Amino acid sequence: MSDDGKPDRDRTPPRTRTRTPTTPAVAVVDAQTPGNVGTIARAMKNFGFEELLLIDPPELDPDGEAYGFAGHARDDVLPNAVETTFDDLVANYHTIGCTAVTNEDDDNHVRFPFSTPADLAERLPAVDGPTALVFGRERVGLTNAELARIDEICSIPASEEYPALNLGQAATITLYELRELALEGGRTQLPDLERVRAPEPLLERLYDQWDDLLVELNHPEEKREKTMRMVRRVYGRVDLTEREATTFLGLLRRATERPDRKE
Amino acid sequence: MSDDGKPDRDRTPPRTRTRTPTTPAVAVVDAQTPGNVGTIARAMKNFGFEELLLIDPPELDPDGEAYGFAGHARDDVLPNAVETTFDDLVANYHTIGCTAVTNEDDDNHVRFPFSTPADLAERLPAVDGPTALVFGRERVGLTNAELARIDEICSIPASEEYPALNLGQAATITLYELRELALEGGRTQLPDLERVRAPEPLLERLYDQWDDLLVELNHPEEKREKTMRMVRRVYGRVDLTEREATTFLGLLRRATERPDRKE
Repeated sequence: MSDDGKPDRDRTPPRTRTRTPTTPAVAVVDAQTPGNVGTIARAMKNFGFEELLLIDPPELDPDGEAYGFAGHARDDVLPNAVETTFDDLVANYHTIGCTAVTNEDDDNHVRFPFSTPADLAERLPAVDGPTALVFGRERVGLTNAELARIDEICSIPASEEYPALNLGQAATITLYELRELALEGGRTQLPDLERVRAPEPLLERLYDQWDDLLVELNHPEEKREKTMRMVRRVYGRVDLTEREATTFLGLLRRATERPDRKE
Repeated sequence: MSDDGKPDRDRTPPRTRTRTPTTPAVAVVDAQTPGNVGTIARAMKNFGFEELLLIDPPELDPDGEAYGFAGHARDDVLPNAVETTFDDLVANYHTIGCTAVTNEDDDNHVRFPFSTPADLAERLPAVDGPTALVFGRERVGLTNAELARIDEICSIPASEEYPALNLGQAATITLYELRELALEGGRTQLPDLERVRAPEPLLERLYDQWDDLLVELNHPEEKREKTMRMVRRVYGRVDLTEREATTFLGLLRRATERPDRKE
């Protein structure tokens, strides 16, 4: 209800609900080595991102390392990359700057507060609007002056002892975590459902066959119930498929009956 | 209770509960380019892994790409790497083979069933025992013959169109996902608690100050309650720190009172 007592839905239609979240662009600031640009382009292609923005890039020779490291991204992501300026980037996108080094308190907002890529993967799918993931140059990353102009900070959790990731590796992890913003319908190469569990009556026949085998082996009667419980716990936690259960059942039946055993 | 009616705890002391999960080793099979070995070593160091096993490795020249790409791992992970054989690997470790290409059903168990790195990150912390994450050569990855000898399969969800990750990038993502198995006490460079929310009375003073400002600005009275609700919703979802709230409060007070305004 709104303040005047009328139902809100009569006044404020949900304007944005049918829109899908915008896939973020990827911006690389002042990369020194073409190979890292290629690595980032490949990770973009692997996780469905398309828009690559380059600020002060190194020369990207079609016969050089950028294209050599890009895999299939050499066909689209890399040749479609757009060279731009930091000013234009900040003016046109909600910018998320990635850095290994954060502040721990709010004395200084250059690197504080921060989110992890996993935090962003939870929040961003519910938001629409142009967004850019911004990665800085090798060695020093994004400068304080750059980070101060950026809207929010992202940091990958890593070893206290050595949290500084290589540029290409940091981008790879971030894009992996945010893949659901980029892959159409969230679809990957993996099936949604990995496998179908065998029908319960088949699994019960498998357990009965084990029980028969224990009898055949003269397994001590006082231990049978406990052993059968162990068998059930082992199979129970692996979600056997029908084919797996059928194969085990056949092998156990033959082990019990030993039809070709010499009498 | 066990089968004979005695409480289980009198008979089966929990032998393994106080042990911590073993940090997996990382095995690289037949890598062609030293740079990828260096990239993997760096990711290991970034995420706390120490044991690098190399099967048929390329030559790792201390002045070459492996050491050049390894970052601080050049000091320990890389020089401590152990050359071994596939036979010894399979004999001594629970092996987890990483591949982009899986089966979709149980016709063939070479690449089926599979887990994702995130699945492993949930399951492995509860298991103790020597484990190796196995990565295959560039281009073709692990062969079917190798995968058939490996205990389980891991696959990174990626684009249907182009799921084949570069070797170093695949290892980086897998080690990132499994970092809690390797980082001592799960500790990262990031603080556990990112920030402390401002005290509620301070936040209420901030809202009161906004209300005063609306009055001062002659904001229409019929809109004030709704506008104040919007203000509360915006601040409410950003978890302002004390410093942030104090700064806003001071600025708003000055905007309301305009002490230095020319009368």
